[in-house]
Amino acid sequence: MSTEASDHSGIRDVVTDVSGEKLARAATIGRGSPVLAFDVGGTDIKSALFDADGTALGLRRTPTPAGGEGGAERLIERLAELADDLREQHPDVEPSAIGLVVPGIVDEKNGIGVFSSNLGWRDAPLRALAAERFGMPVAFDHDVRAASWAEHVLGGARSYENSVVLIIGTGIAGAILIDGHPHTAGGYAGEIGHSPIGDWPCPCGARGCLEAVASAGAISRRYAEASGTPVGGAKEVIALAAAGDEIAARVWDEALDALTLSIAQLTAVIAPQAVVIGGGLSRAGGALFDELNARLRDRLSFHRIPALVPAELSGNAGILGSALWAREAAAVGEEGSA
Amino acid sequence: MSTEASDHSGIRDVVTDVSGEKLARAATIGRGSPVLAFDVGGTDIKSALFDADGTALGLRRTPTPAGGEGGAERLIERLAELADDLREQHPDVEPSAIGLVVPGIVDEKNGIGVFSSNLGWRDAPLRALAAERFGMPVAFDHDVRAASWAEHVLGGARSYENSVVLIIGTGIAGAILIDGHPHTAGGYAGEIGHSPIGDWPCPCGARGCLEAVASAGAISRRYAEASGTPVGGAKEVIALAAAGDEIAARVWDEALDALTLSIAQLTAVIAPQAVVIGGGLSRAGGALFDELNARLRDRLSFHRIPALVPAELSGNAGILGSALWAREAAAVGEEGSA
Repeated sequence: MSTEASDHSGIRDVVTDVSGEKLARAATIGRGSPVLAFDVGGTDIKSALFDADGTALGLRRTPTPAGGEGGAERLIERLAELADDLREQHPDVEPSAIGLVVPGIVDEKNGIGVFSSNLGWRDAPLRALAAERFGMPVAFDHDVRAASWAEHVLGGARSYENSVVLIIGTGIAGAILIDGHPHTAGGYAGEIGHSPIGDWPCPCGARGCLEAVASAGAISRRYAEASGTPVGGAKEVIALAAAGDEIAARVWDEALDALTLSIAQLTAVIAPQAVVIGGGLSRAGGALFDELNARLRDRLSFHRIPALVPAELSGNAGILGSALWAREAAAVGEEGSA
Repeated sequence: MSTEASDHSGIRDVVTDVSGEKLARAATIGRGSPVLAFDVGGTDIKSALFDADGTALGLRRTPTPAGGEGGAERLIERLAELADDLREQHPDVEPSAIGLVVPGIVDEKNGIGVFSSNLGWRDAPLRALAAERFGMPVAFDHDVRAASWAEHVLGGARSYENSVVLIIGTGIAGAILIDGHPHTAGGYAGEIGHSPIGDWPCPCGARGCLEAVASAGAISRRYAEASGTPVGGAKEVIALAAAGDEIAARVWDEALDALTLSIAQLTAVIAPQAVVIGGGLSRAGGALFDELNARLRDRLSFHRIPALVPAELSGNAGILGSALWAREAAAVGEEGSA
């Protein structure tokens, strides 16, 4: 059973009926066709029905079914169950398309989940499987690119036609917007977390990847390794650095230098107007944004320094992006049948 | 006086009447409106009239007038003289547009030469000045981006909708093609030569720029500095390295590592299908391309490694790109007057 409460701003808090976890407030996506939206992650699936006002109904988080052999089919079955629940709870809302966003390497043009180590698929025809199961148009995309699209339409990147969104959490994921369009290169673009900037080993098999030094996960891990003391997260390392802990200061300094170098490269090569930073590390505020700004100005010259802005949609950006793309698929579906 | 000789392939050798220097063979740009094309460099201007068959007539190289105060106006006057010469020599060919490409930071959308240290202008309204002087539509672009466009339409990049062109000579210039369109970001994109990858000083004022280690100019300079022996060019350093000279081997190895790192970053971030390499260093052949290929595969993992292909248009890519853009301007001009 879900409890919902809306306030005067059209924003709605939702308490999930499965994990019991209260999700962050979801902004509405504006008026349009009702759609079903899913944001599939390595451990859980967010699902919701977006009504004609663009409000998320029944937004909840449930566990992702096991990966491996048959994982793609199990996932689609689970989505169908979630859809049935949503339609039962809101019989008056008739969705006309599905949004489905997934992690890994995603070829959104051909509707293929190319590779996901967590979910255990290779070349899974997820869009076709979903379209067959639901009998509706399916919008299919990469989770972080969908989240970045939501930031572009509704959030921190909405003033810019050329931007890069970096989500810095356990790892570092990126998405690139060129002249108002996502640049994907068949799913291979935007791997800024696995862009090499040094010579250290990365679990991915490459050397010198940004995320092995500068993700929130790497900051905690590197501090724990160097100090012998486990910490609760990057936030704690940043606080220790501010309080004078030398190991914490070094780990944080190296993370900032690595992020600065990567953003400097983005600046020289694709020259985004803005770099929008989300994920857990973005909550460090000035300790992150002011430092990056100063270091970026220090190491570049004639280049056009991008605005560094915080992401605004928090953990819901993925499902909002999924719903936005589903709206597009619904519009195309209506044109097709008109 | 110019002497011209064509062969059965429709390609024409041209001997210039000013510098006396024989230009490399220019491929034709195909059938279309006759246009005047200019490729302005720091030391010389290439000019030619392209006829309806797309053959370059009167292609020659003449000195660029002095920069500094009034430099933009002097340049336009010089272009008008060159145009008069060409029209006198070929009275039967009636050009309907001008192509003008220049170095530096170039805002091609607004027709502005934002900055050129060699030519000494800042925010020069070059397209407007040329349009006023010639009374014809003017296509205006950055020299290397125009050269890259020619490689995309006619040369080494023609099989790819997503590519990066690197011109490695005295410096390193780059241009980015996304989904078949040049990505410029107001003139700030493609500065791959000034993308930082280390901590060494660069004359531009930034730290760690690629071109300070990996351009042909840097390779010669770094060898001369380390050995105390001047060399004739990067080609000589590569030959010395192959012959067992330890200093040459180290300088060349560092250049290859720096290029590998930059191309690895391009691969992770924008994932081009191909990186097209031109300029003097590209003539190193296998010593460059085979090494970069092997090193790139060694340092990356799941990434999609781009094809590394040599540029094909050599020193004429700039004026060919200028003529191609002029054709586009002519087409727009005709639509406008129809």
